[in-house]
Amino acid sequence: MLVDFKRPSSNIKYLSSLSSESWLEQALSNPIEILIDHAHCERKAAGVAIQLMFRYPSEPDLAEVLSPIAREELEHFEKILVLLKDLGHSLKALKPPPYGAELAKCVRKEEPYRMLDSFLIAGLIEARSHERLSLLALNSEHKSFKLLYVSLLESEARHFGIYWKLAQTKFSKNETNKRLEELSNIESEILSQTFALPRIHS
Amino acid sequence: MLVDFKRPSSNIKYLSSLSSESWLEQALSNPIEILIDHAHCERKAAGVAIQLMFRYPSEPDLAEVLSPIAREELEHFEKILVLLKDLGHSLKALKPPPYGAELAKCVRKEEPYRMLDSFLIAGLIEARSHERLSLLALNSEHKSFKLLYVSLLESEARHFGIYWKLAQTKFSKNETNKRLEELSNIESEILSQTFALPRIHS
Ligand SMILES: [Fe+2]
Ligand SMILES: [Fe+2]
Ligand SMILES: [Fe+2]
Ligand SMILES: [Fe+2]
Repeated sequence: MLVDFKRPSSNIKYLSSLSSESWLEQALSNPIEILIDHAHCERKAAGVAIQLMFRYPSEPDLAEVLSPIAREELEHFEKILVLLKDLGHSLKALKPPPYGAELAKCVRKEEPYRMLDSFLIAGLIEARSHERLSLLALNSEHKSFKLLYVSLLESEARHFGIYWKLAQTKFSKNETNKRLEELSNIESEILSQTFALPRIHS
Repeated sequence: MLVDFKRPSSNIKYLSSLSSESWLEQALSNPIEILIDHAHCERKAAGVAIQLMFRYPSEPDLAEVLSPIAREELEHFEKILVLLKDLGHSLKALKPPPYGAELAKCVRKEEPYRMLDSFLIAGLIEARSHERLSLLALNSEHKSFKLLYVSLLESEARHFGIYWKLAQTKFSKNETNKRLEELSNIESEILSQTFALPRIHS
């Protein structure tokens, strides 16, 4: 361990494991690449919410919840674009880590399990973003990075809660949490080997 | 002709033809179905803007323009959901008219033409929405419909302008307008036969 990293005092309890120090070290050493990658994460989070609205157009009260999430993620995305520009950088394509594709493989094909898994995986990604943005907020040296990550991290925890609640419109709390635990173990497993490139979900 | 319909005093000049009275008659006779279909149009418009951001992540200053469009379309979408609920209805899946798929066929495969065509088709759809929302605003009997359509129609004209400008980041104004005219003729051709079901783009 090279540095004494700060850990947030609270984390979303459904994450099976906390991020490794090697991830954080890699992220802190590549702040711009992480910022650009996080912009893509926000854009993708908006895309996921909209995709779920498209998939379940007749689901009562679903669009009313997902559309504001999508708008909020786009606001986050635009905020990052502004900081990137201030720092003399701009958005560019980055090779994504295997995280999203690996998690997508866990979604069962038949309804209503497909819906449950989709909500829970969307939620877990939000929970992991929350945990990692907290680490970045606490340990980034540059003040503008700190401020940005602080401003984003709470809504990601809230988004986790929204997806978790959505899962419970069709499944009991017990069933929801049982499947969440399974998926959360897989999520931690995927992240157990640090990806070669610095990414929010590497 | 059954009724004397009102026409807006100005239309986007790039549309090759105005909507038929048979379209308007069908739309006015099915206000709820048209409202639900328009909700889907707003959601799709947000989807298109986000999809273009995904496709061209390295295009300078593109996401800065598209992300606010996507957010605005989602706001429109949410506004329609509120009115639907007020009226005792809710979102449901509707069979889409062939319009979007037919227009998508006109997008050339090779860049930068693919980008030009995508921007111009997105713009034409906005222009047509503007024209039709204007007709609905002028001719709807129910005040809450009138007010809703009035509140939406101006941004659709603005969105047309944004896509038209985006096209000109890679192509001259002449080239842009030449291709726009071709696509606009096709767009009018697609709408020349009224679809069996009441839709915003039928
Ligand atoms: Fe976000
Ligand atoms: Fe989020
Ligand atoms: Fe709109
Ligand atoms: Fe629009």
